[in-house]
Amino acid sequence: MSELDADLRTDANWGTPASYIPELARVDPAQFAITVVTADGKIHSAGDSDTRFSVQSVTKVFTLAIALGRSGDQLWQRVSREPSGLAFNSIVQLEHEGGRPRNPFINAGAIVTTDEILSGRAPRDALAEIVQFIRTAAGSDDIHINEAVAASETAHGHRNFALAHFLASFDNLKNAPEMTLGTYFHHCALEMTTTQLAMAGRFLMDAATGPRLLSTARVRRLNALMLTCGHYDGSGDFAYRVGIPGKSGVGGGILAIVPGTAAIAVWSPGLNRYGNSLKGTEALATLARKMNWSIF
Amino acid sequence: MSELDADLRTDANWGTPASYIPELARVDPAQFAITVVTADGKIHSAGDSDTRFSVQSVTKVFTLAIALGRSGDQLWQRVSREPSGLAFNSIVQLEHEGGRPRNPFINAGAIVTTDEILSGRAPRDALAEIVQFIRTAAGSDDIHINEAVAASETAHGHRNFALAHFLASFDNLKNAPEMTLGTYFHHCALEMTTTQLAMAGRFLMDAATGPRLLSTARVRRLNALMLTCGHYDGSGDFAYRVGIPGKSGVGGGILAIVPGTAAIAVWSPGLNRYGNSLKGTEALATLARKMNWSIF
Amino acid sequence: MSELDADLRTDANWGTPASYIPELARVDPAQFAITVVTADGKIHSAGDSDTRFSVQSVTKVFTLAIALGRSGDQLWQRVSREPSGLAFNSIVQLEHEGGRPRNPFINAGAIVTTDEILSGRAPRDALAEIVQFIRTAAGSDDIHINEAVAASETAHGHRNFALAHFLASFDNLKNAPEMTLGTYFHHCALEMTTTQLAMAGRFLMDAATGPRLLSTARVRRLNALMLTCGHYDGSGDFAYRVGIPGKSGVGGGILAIVPGTAAIAVWSPGLNRYGNSLKGTEALATLARKMNWSIF
Amino acid sequence: MSELDADLRTDANWGTPASYIPELARVDPAQFAITVVTADGKIHSAGDSDTRFSVQSVTKVFTLAIALGRSGDQLWQRVSREPSGLAFNSIVQLEHEGGRPRNPFINAGAIVTTDEILSGRAPRDALAEIVQFIRTAAGSDDIHINEAVAASETAHGHRNFALAHFLASFDNLKNAPEMTLGTYFHHCALEMTTTQLAMAGRFLMDAATGPRLLSTARVRRLNALMLTCGHYDGSGDFAYRVGIPGKSGVGGGILAIVPGTAAIAVWSPGLNRYGNSLKGTEALATLARKMNWSIF
Repeated sequence: MSELDADLRTDANWGTPASYIPELARVDPAQFAITVVTADGKIHSAGDSDTRFSVQSVTKVFTLAIALGRSGDQLWQRVSREPSGLAFNSIVQLEHEGGRPRNPFINAGAIVTTDEILSGRAPRDALAEIVQFIRTAAGSDDIHINEAVAASETAHGHRNFALAHFLASFDNLKNAPEMTLGTYFHHCALEMTTTQLAMAGRFLMDAATGPRLLSTARVRRLNALMLTCGHYDGSGDFAYRVGIPGKSGVGGGILAIVPGTAAIAVWSPGLNRYGNSLKGTEALATLARKMNWSIF
Repeated sequence: MSELDADLRTDANWGTPASYIPELARVDPAQFAITVVTADGKIHSAGDSDTRFSVQSVTKVFTLAIALGRSGDQLWQRVSREPSGLAFNSIVQLEHEGGRPRNPFINAGAIVTTDEILSGRAPRDALAEIVQFIRTAAGSDDIHINEAVAASETAHGHRNFALAHFLASFDNLKNAPEMTLGTYFHHCALEMTTTQLAMAGRFLMDAATGPRLLSTARVRRLNALMLTCGHYDGSGDFAYRVGIPGKSGVGGGILAIVPGTAAIAVWSPGLNRYGNSLKGTEALATLARKMNWSIF
Repeated sequence: MSELDADLRTDANWGTPASYIPELARVDPAQFAITVVTADGKIHSAGDSDTRFSVQSVTKVFTLAIALGRSGDQLWQRVSREPSGLAFNSIVQLEHEGGRPRNPFINAGAIVTTDEILSGRAPRDALAEIVQFIRTAAGSDDIHINEAVAASETAHGHRNFALAHFLASFDNLKNAPEMTLGTYFHHCALEMTTTQLAMAGRFLMDAATGPRLLSTARVRRLNALMLTCGHYDGSGDFAYRVGIPGKSGVGGGILAIVPGTAAIAVWSPGLNRYGNSLKGTEALATLARKMNWSIF
Repeated sequence: MSELDADLRTDANWGTPASYIPELARVDPAQFAITVVTADGKIHSAGDSDTRFSVQSVTKVFTLAIALGRSGDQLWQRVSREPSGLAFNSIVQLEHEGGRPRNPFINAGAIVTTDEILSGRAPRDALAEIVQFIRTAAGSDDIHINEAVAASETAHGHRNFALAHFLASFDNLKNAPEMTLGTYFHHCALEMTTTQLAMAGRFLMDAATGPRLLSTARVRRLNALMLTCGHYDGSGDFAYRVGIPGKSGVGGGILAIVPGTAAIAVWSPGLNRYGNSLKGTEALATLARKMNWSIF
């Protein structure tokens, strides 16, 4: 792990942090962290594993788990399970599909998932449930929302407002757009360290360690969705090169799962052309190859 | 297996065979076969496992293996590795992507793969190589092309001719369209039994049984592509419900792989709404669940 | 004219009123009115020409005239002048074109035009200017906004909110979406009779009658835009069958211009498959043919 | 006219000739010709009006006239009359519309029109009819097909072959693709001078001069189609800036009509960004403004 960390730092190409909000744009790209939690509960970390970063879309894994717990398979009436062939925030495909997002990991799909969790409550109550779920999963209460990031997402969130109103125009939004988006922007603004994130991912390796939050069948299905849809339009490439389920966020974090074996969190804020962490993807590719962790 | 076969036959919904050529349209839909070859080389079959069927797009797995063997990663200059968000024969996405097909399993991508194999030779020479590869993989010389099916595909192949000329207009075809398509239509018209197809898939489980035709690294990548792209626009659904790599054909066949454990061929000619075998998909879902074969 | 009115009423197919807001859906479709103002200032009417109807998108002609008067050709930096090949409220084409609407008569383009007029003012001030322009054009102060219709448009306006936020995400909106849309929904909710609307259209025939509000060059260009883009995705059909510039609204009104000769307003609330007045289009086709008014 | 010619030649920006076939690419762009035939039969020319150029898509006006003469309004079952919102050779829109081209002036629509004329005959017979129609219209037998251009179009015509096969896959092609395209490539390879082309366009001004080839009603409709669809995705811009019906070709020619008044042919091989003659468009804009010829 230390070797992996050292090797990655020798290559000067760190990618480019997300630029659509100042809070993400000004993050120093030359940072890297990795934490692996294995089935026996052991924790291995390297790099800046105590630095908090904005998890962004990685929370979509947790909100999907919560929404499935609340609504079961009825959720799939509102959102499909197919990889998205177009860019992650595209509204084109949404119209083509009659207002039913392709999967719960693109923005439109995650807005629907959040809307399902909100379910008429005040956003603060839904957020409390989401934060509590993640804290329980991670075994740590020291996980918080960065209000400045949430405010900035709201201020720069015209594309997401467009998606939410578009969903509403197809009757696929149960709450007012500003309520659902308020919840959405806040849970995307959660901050975690790689240690916290890897711990929070333990339930997805379905092993003896950590809290049991979903049934085995549902864990497998969530992992399948991460593999086919977890990296926007780079999902096929990630499956081909890395070979394990994972979910990325524009903050530079990735949660990856080796079923039965390990939960991995990596973070490096510079992104590749698909919008996924450049060094994070490299680290996972190297690790999966060295550890023989490909599921294929 | 016999139980699985019997259970499937009790449900009267067999789906609808492909209708675009008479040779496929007139096949009796109420047929089912399954063969499983395990890592120890044992063969388990049930149903009509000696009936030959048109493998159609299942050959794309073998032609991709051959093309990668011939050209290596240069192939990816001509075709991407991402799931296709639109219907399997759509020309729209091809224009959007500048003439580079999304993956080697949609028609446009498989035409490129075939074109790479043809490589200036006479179609008969390329076909001889393809057929020999599959015979070697299956350990059987009794595998042949159905000329009537190939002729019918040619006669009804306007959509594929459009794709080939479209690729040519983007300079992504090295041979004359009629040469490449002649090769393509013929290898899609191969006929196999489920026993032959499961045997031919042994090299993809990367175990001690059967001939070793690709490196472990390449086998894993091929399996990853099958998982993300193997079932047209139903790939996400197949991964979610079945959880193993597979490639379907409109003839009703599916080749599925449990890495290190088993190669499975199913066949039932009636298709579901995605164009994949209805009973075949059900059988694989049941088998994967009962045998705990999900890779997730 | 009376004959035209009588003939039209003998055919029982009145089309279907717009259904997206109750105020339009409950209008009796079996109504028809026509008013023609000729170059000598004479007014000819038939049918329900004193009934007020919701002009809806017909106001886009007037707001375009105002925006061109305020901003000149700079407006064309924000909106194109090409016919839209897709349905009138489609968001797909907007993304394809990078946030620059195809023309000022589709919803996205009219939102941009309204935004240009609003220009940092309070909506009430911009609305006062729009209403005053139309009153001056029509020579009548008895033209008002139906607040109930405006409120209903706002309540059911998710598609337009999506368009406005989408424009904002491309930096093609200068005012807050709710400000621009508030102005937009209100000027679409103007009510006029065919007499008032035909009078208001006099400046577009560029003859000696009525107020002179635009230069000859600009009038011609506005008429050209009406001809190529005035009837959503039925513009080509209207040009082919009727042969004069016109702009329709989902309230069932159409303003049509015979350059140098006549300004015509028709109204019948039932729509054809393109979203344009069914009887209104028929009436204009008949009138143009009988009067030899085609511009071609 | 001489003044117009001289003025145009002072501006050094001649645009870029079409580059997809060598025969067009190597034409010297610094050429310009214009011929105006007025309703009284007088001919006014300037520039290189005796130089023959490849008329290319301008023939689509004549083939549409012939197809309407042969098939009447039944033609509209196979092709629509709406402006195309996308680039002139796009296959995307064709799939979206179920194989019915948007209008007879985009490539797909002109292939259908040609197919309608071919109607089971040998291509040479259909071509004889097309050439004879144009010779009659022009009052000149010295109009010929450039076989080298036709051969080059065929050799580089993959995009058109794709369109033809695509139409065939939707059952919207009655003849074999190579038969219809053979006819299509040949009539596009006709060569004319501006004098010949303006003469050939006389029947579209529907005045007392020249042969009467279509009824007044049909002439008007053809002119309407030229106005809304005659300049690919620059049709709206041409209508806005020039204000008269016209049809352009990638050879740099434009035929434009002032109904009842004049038929105009311009030629300059350099194209603007829409694929229409740059100097030709400028000349028509200037002429229409000076002569007050806008139809609006």
